[in-house]
Formats: sequence, structure tokens, C-alpha cells
Amino acid sequence: MQIKNRNSLNNQSQVEKWGRFEIVIQGPQIGNPFVDVRLAAKFEFGHRSIEVDGFYNGNGEYCIRFMPDKVGEWIYRTVSNVPELDSITGTVTVEEPGEGNHGPVSVSNTYHFAYADGTPFYPFGTTSYVWNHQGDQLEKQTLKSLRESGAFNKMRMCIFPKHYDYNLQEPSCYPFQGSPEAGWDFTAFDPEYWRHLEQRINDLQVLGIEIDLILFHPYDRWGFAKMDEATDNLYLQYAVARLSSFRGIWWSLANEYDLMRNKSMSDWDRFFRIIQESDPYQHLRSIHNWHHKMIHRRSDAHWYDHSKPWVTHVSIQHNELAYIDDWKEIYRKPIVIDECRYEGNIDLGWGSLSAERMVECFWQGVAQGAYVTHGETYLHPEGIIWWSHGGTLHGNSPARIRFLKSIMEDGPQLGEVKLNFDWDTAAAGVDEKYYLVYFVDSRPAFRYLPLPDEKEFTIEIIDTWEMKITQLPGTYSGRTRIELPGKLYQALRIKAVL
Amino acid sequence: MQIKNRNSLNNQSQVEKWGRFEIVIQGPQIGNPFVDVRLAAKFEFGHRSIEVDGFYNGNGEYCIRFMPDKVGEWIYRTVSNVPELDSITGTVTVEEPGEGNHGPVSVSNTYHFAYADGTPFYPFGTTSYVWNHQGDQLEKQTLKSLRESGAFNKMRMCIFPKHYDYNLQEPSCYPFQGSPEAGWDFTAFDPEYWRHLEQRINDLQVLGIEIDLILFHPYDRWGFAKMDEATDNLYLQYAVARLSSFRGIWWSLANEYDLMRNKSMSDWDRFFRIIQESDPYQHLRSIHNWHHKMIHRRSDAHWYDHSKPWVTHVSIQHNELAYIDDWKEIYRKPIVIDECRYEGNIDLGWGSLSAERMVECFWQGVAQGAYVTHGETYLHPEGIIWWSHGGTLHGNSPARIRFLKSIMEDGPQLGEVKLNFDWDTAAAGVDEKYYLVYFVDSRPAFRYLPLPDEKEFTIEIIDTWEMKITQLPGTYSGRTRIELPGKLYQALRIKAVL
Repeated sequence: MQIKNRNSLNNQSQVEKWGRFEIVIQGPQIGNPFVDVRLAAKFEFGHRSIEVDGFYNGNGEYCIRFMPDKVGEWIYRTVSNVPELDSITGTVTVEEPGEGNHGPVSVSNTYHFAYADGTPFYPFGTTSYVWNHQGDQLEKQTLKSLRESGAFNKMRMCIFPKHYDYNLQEPSCYPFQGSPEAGWDFTAFDPEYWRHLEQRINDLQVLGIEIDLILFHPYDRWGFAKMDEATDNLYLQYAVARLSSFRGIWWSLANEYDLMRNKSMSDWDRFFRIIQESDPYQHLRSIHNWHHKMIHRRSDAHWYDHSKPWVTHVSIQHNELAYIDDWKEIYRKPIVIDECRYEGNIDLGWGSLSAERMVECFWQGVAQGAYVTHGETYLHPEGIIWWSHGGTLHGNSPARIRFLKSIMEDGPQLGEVKLNFDWDTAAAGVDEKYYLVYFVDSRPAFRYLPLPDEKEFTIEIIDTWEMKITQLPGTYSGRTRIELPGKLYQALRIKAVL
Repeated sequence: MQIKNRNSLNNQSQVEKWGRFEIVIQGPQIGNPFVDVRLAAKFEFGHRSIEVDGFYNGNGEYCIRFMPDKVGEWIYRTVSNVPELDSITGTVTVEEPGEGNHGPVSVSNTYHFAYADGTPFYPFGTTSYVWNHQGDQLEKQTLKSLRESGAFNKMRMCIFPKHYDYNLQEPSCYPFQGSPEAGWDFTAFDPEYWRHLEQRINDLQVLGIEIDLILFHPYDRWGFAKMDEATDNLYLQYAVARLSSFRGIWWSLANEYDLMRNKSMSDWDRFFRIIQESDPYQHLRSIHNWHHKMIHRRSDAHWYDHSKPWVTHVSIQHNELAYIDDWKEIYRKPIVIDECRYEGNIDLGWGSLSAERMVECFWQGVAQGAYVTHGETYLHPEGIIWWSHGGTLHGNSPARIRFLKSIMEDGPQLGEVKLNFDWDTAAAGVDEKYYLVYFVDSRPAFRYLPLPDEKEFTIEIIDTWEMKITQLPGTYSGRTRIELPGKLYQALRIKAVL
């Protein structure tokens, strides 16, 4: 029996906090190891213990992965129904996290997110559903585009391949063993597929990009959207065992779950519970809708109830961002608009927004204390569209999104504020300290601002499209008239003088 | 005793159908003729009879006005508690209507309007709340602007003067006798004020513009927004007696009724009933909201229930036109968006829309089978803003609204259609005959149209901003791909080849 540690940096039993520690054990290949072999390990630090599931990686190789959250010496012991894999013990030394490693993201202050080390995380997502199914050259181009753009720190992407308009090619690899022609062995995964996925997850993590990983979706010709209950369960457990040690993972149960005719609300409940019970790190969990109405007036359908306890944040598809205020009040969780239509010019209604409108959605969202996700759908001679395939970003919104991202990163988490900046604005901030105000569809030539008395503020006018910040001279207090350019796409940043 | 007929054209007992026949009687000035004298007349044509109330016009002059709806010889007889005014009889000959006289407008085909002669009426309203309080020079300029623009066929305007931002001047005349300094005699009207109002109503009617007359509003420093019940009743009865014979009148019970803290829902019910009972011609009746939510989530307030039987059409203030479909289903009445923000650049949120957005609201509304009202709020060196004072139109939307109006007037009433032109469009028409399709926020480079098989259609691409119509060559049938310019503000007009 051979045991080895396959850590990202070296082969020693040493790993950084929120890094990935991996135990690899050669074991027997009897029966179907994917279902017949049960393997787990308990990692202990003082009186604390964390149990993690292992998984079969093919070729007689069994793995256990662990993401420690505390510096120091941990011990572990395996548990298995296979004697060769059982009761293996060891220690692992956890070091301080390296640069850029802030740990996994979780909910912070009701409506926001932060890394485990306390650093706020403001999601600026993009969408490239199956970029990881496009072959090495295009996938590397996608990573290059993400790095060069600097606009995005979250990627919505799928495990399963996608069948849809502009998505008719066969991928090179599938999560299950088998083929479209021969059919699938739904009791056996294809480890090569998963290793490739992990490589791409890791690539994103290196770029500081969180992975909003879509577990199910309806765009399917292979049968992955209508697997039976046992297969769904096995698939989820395998995904969690393999992937939960990646600190950047968020679990998105589905894209447009309500288009999956073979799943019921209780299926979605079960999926949430499986993940909640299996994931030792409690990564973020959400589910993404297709239908635009919470309650469908002409049927008895309705949105998945995001107030259920296993939903960590509300992942919404909607193009009317004025509702954010309602959703915040209803759900009391972070609101992420994980689709408000995409910048582009394709024939489909959700894929032909102007760049101006895409950018406006971001501002309207963040200035209500919510978050917004980008996508791009320009026609391309070879059919390479960012929204699905990745490749190159062609649009005019990413530069503006990066500009907004830098403004957000310079400021505090944006909460509800008492000041009323008039109903045509989206406005959020920290009372008496910081306000970000965006004029929605408005382009006034001047405005009165209801600043608090007895405090001094600086005021900057932000042209969100031109990406220009103009500070007004002096400081301001109480009711203040400011002149504005009478143009669309303007915002204000108002900061208390300390 | 002197009796005279004061018709618009001559002094004979002769009037055109839907014209205004007026009996003027000199009578006693004892007591307070506004409240002490009751006067009415019964007009009869064959077995049909119409009772109309008279009113006191000052200087011992009592008037009765009548709008006949049938060509031929009518007889009348007055009824009064004053002997000199009682039992006066006469005849009036009603002739065919003159050119441009189509009669009053009423509801047609559930969601639409038509004149009494059957001609469809597509409301293209504008708003100039107190243009009739601005003095002769400016009022004549307003009429000139309306005539030259050609964009509008409905005017929202108030009876009472207006106190609000940009509206601080004292009018020259008031509906009641008295003054701001000395107070008001709420039992006595100022006939001069009303004669001037009638002159302006008539001026609009001559231009083919319907008068959406606002009976109450909250922008008040004189006390007109908080009169007592008896005064409100008297005021409404006087207004109806004086004005209902103008065929162009629509009764708008209030602008932003829900900002009138001194009125309750049952007051509004009573007002509707008074008008319904007093108006012999059953002119259109509506009421206009301030709050944007039908049901106010944070309070127990809600919209006036437009499904009440005395509401003829739904007059809505809202800037989200995607709801039109819901409102049509809920109310089953014509939907008129009598405020969706205004083109301009003033400091107030509702008054700083771009012209592009104003025009888009019109297209989005009509292509859902509803109607939209314009307003304009550009800063002006002398504070003359179209939305309140009239004057000159400065914006870029009226020319585009006129363009749309001409397209509407060339086509049928736009109903719900079975074809699904994709959810990013507003689309309406007549099944298999005519479709008007507008791309909302979308700018696709091409699109598939789900045209019916076995019918041939012509397709025009309308650039709603550039006001250009491009007909595609040939005819089309079944699923049809069309190339589009990939620009915002495009629409399609699709007509069956007969």
C-alpha cells in the first residue's frame, strides 16, 4: 500500500491554511469502487474534528482532500469499509496562508460577503458556462482574458456540458463514463473529466476568481438533466467530495432550475440538504431561476423559497433591478443578480443588451447594496461567445465594471442609509460616513442633497460611462445644491471628512 | 325676462350634433344664486329625454348647456325653483356634425377608445397642468406649440391653480370668489375664471385635443385641497353643469390622489358617483395615483380600485411599463400611463428623463395595447416649463411621438396576439393581420420571427428614434429570419398581404 500527499506546493505533509491537503492511497479495484467503497477521514485539531469524504480517482487511486482553517498541527485517521483504506493515520502541519489566500467566502453582515480572514468580498461575476469544455487553447485564452480584464472575481460555470443555441458541439470529455452513442454508466465517473475541471477551478482560484459552480442545468441532450434520484445523489456526493476543498467554490444548484421539468421542489430541497450535510466547509449555496415572477400569476408555480435555511444567498435572474429592495426585505440574505441579460447582439432577447445598460445594471445593483453578474453575447464568426465558450471579451462593459469594482474596493460594504436621495436614485452606504448614489434613467442638471447637518462631506461626481471622477471643491454640510452635467450614467460618491 | 341662445356659431336655435347648445336666461339675483337657485332642463327627441343641470353665470345670468347626440328636432323645457326660470320651453334643430367633430370619446373594445362616430381614438397625451393660469400671451403660445407639434391629442390640465416647485406665482383668477388674503367664499364661484377655462377648453377642442381635466390635486396653498364635503360636492356639480357639454372633456378625479391627505377612499367613491350621476354624457372618468405600488408593502395603503364600475379607464402613474400586461388582466379596461416620468433635466427625479427613454415609454406602451402620456421639464431661464406652464416644446421626443401617432393612425387597434415574438419585445396587433413589435432594451443583429404559415406578410423595420421605415423586399411566411441593425430603439411592423 502506498500513501502519498499531493499538495499544491510540495509532497510533504504541510499545507497552508485554506489550502488543499490531499491524501492519495492506492487501493483495490474490486467491484465498482465509485459505489462500493466508502472512505472518509477525520481531521482533528485539539478538541475540534472535521470529517471529510474521500473519493475514487480511477486506476486504484483513492483520495481524501482537506482544507484546514487553522494554523498548527492536525492529525487524521481514515475510515473505510475496505480494510486497506481504513485506519490510516497521519499528521499535517498547517502554515499561515500565502499571499492572495484569504480563505473561502461566506455571508457577512446579512447582505454581503467576506473572505474567512475578514476581507470584504464584493462579487463582480461573469458567466462562461462551459468554458472548461472548449479545449486547451481556448481555455487558456479565457484565463488570459480574465486576467487582463481585471473586472471579474467570480465565474458562473457548469459541470455538465451544454446543449443550446450556439452550443451544439460535442465536448471532449464527460463527468460520467460512457459516450453519447454507447450511453452512460451512471455509477461510474470519468476521473479525467474531473481532474480537468479541477485544473480549471485551480486556474481561476490563482487569478483570485471565485467559482460559482452550477451543478445542474436544463440545456441537455445527453440525459444529465433527467438522471434518477440515486444518480443525482451519487453525483452530488462525488462532486462535494472532490471539490469542496477548493476554497473558491460556491455551489449553484442550478441555472434556471425551473426549466428542469424532471425535478420537483422537493428534489431541490434534497440536493440542498445533501450538499449542506456533505460539505465540511459550508461553501455558499444558491439556486438560480428562469421565470421572472416570484409568484407566477397564471399558474401555481413560484420561485424556490430562498428563505429556506440552506440557501446562503439569493441568486436571481431578473432584468428589473428596482425589485432588489423588496428581495432584501423578503429574504434578508445577500442578493446576487446572476443574470440581468447580457451585453451583445445575438438574436435572443436576453443576449442583446447595450454595454450602457449592462453597466447601468451593475451600478443600479451595487448602489442598492446588491451584486450583479456580467455576461457577453456578441455574434462571432466561429461561434465563440464569451457567455458559453469564453475566449476574448469584445464588449465595452468590462472596463466600466472594473472601474466600479475599484470604487467598491475603496469603500465600505454598502448598507441601507437613512438619507433619502430621491426615488430616482439607487443609494447605499454607511450612515453619516459614506454614500454611493446612482441616478437611474435620470440626468438632472442639478440636485439638492439632504446631507446631515454638523458633518462635513466631500462630494465626487462619477461619470460611470466615461470612468471619470470629478471632486467638487471644498466640503459640504446640510442641504446642498450641486450642479450636475445633465447627462445619463452619473453617480455621486459622498464621504465624511474624518 | 330675456332668453337667448349662445351657440358657438350663431344665435339661432340650431347646433351641430355633439356641438354645444346654450340657453341663457336673465333671472333674479336674490340670495346666493349658486346655491339657492335650482335649474335644469329636459331635452327630448321622440321618446328619448336627457336632463341637464343649469348653472349661475353671474350678473343675473343663468345658463343651460346641452350636447345633442342625434340629428333632428329636439324640444326642451326648464325646471326651476325660481318661477321666472321654470317651464321655459323651446326647440333646437340639430344638424350633421361639422368637419373634425367625431363626438365625445368613450371606451371601445375593452382596452381602447373611439369617438362617438366610431373613429378609433389613440390617446397621445401631454401634460401642462396649469397652462390655463398663465395669461393670454403664454397661453396662446402653448396653443401654437400644440398645433405646430402635431404630436398630441389629449391634454392633462387642472381646474385649480398649482403650488409646487417651479410653481409659486399667483394666478390671476380663481374658481371661487375671494382672494388668498381675504379668504374664499366657498359657496360662490367666480364666473370669469370658468369662462376663461371654457375658452381654453374650446381652444383645445378646435385643435382636436381631448381635455383630461383634473378636478382635484394636492399641490395647494389656498385651501382647495382641503375643502369640506359640502364644498367638494357643490364644486363638482358646478363643474359638471358648466363643462360636460364640451365633447372633449374627460374627468380626471385627481392627480396623485393618494397625496391628498384630507380625502379618504370613500370621498373618491362619492366624487365618482356625483360625476356619474350628474354628467348626462358619461364622459370618461379616471383617477391618477402617486404611489408606485398597487399594494404598499410597508403600510395598509393601496391603489384606488380601478375595477369599480364608475372608473372607465385606468390612469396610472408608473415608470415600469412591463406591468401593463398585468394591469390589463386585472382591470380589463383601457390602460393609460398618465405619467411615466418626463423628458427634461430638472432636479426632480420624475423630471429628468432622456428623450430616448420618453419615446421608448411610448413604444413600449402602445406595443402592449396601452397608451402613454408625455410631459417635458427642461430648466428655463424664466421658469416656463411645459409640464406646468406650457409655452414652447424644447425636447426631442414630440417629433418621435408624432411619428408613432401617425403609425398608430394608419393601423388597427392593437390587441393581444397569439404569436410569441420573444419576451424582450412588446408586441400587439390583430392575429394573422397586423403586428407591431418593439424591442425593449434589446438590439439584436438578427431575429427569427414566428410568422403564421400559409399567409404572406410584408415586414418593415422601424427605427423609432431616426423615424425611418425600411421595408424588407418581398413577402414572408412561417418561421422567418430577418437581419436587424443591432441598434437600440427598433421596431417591426408586419402586415398581412391581403
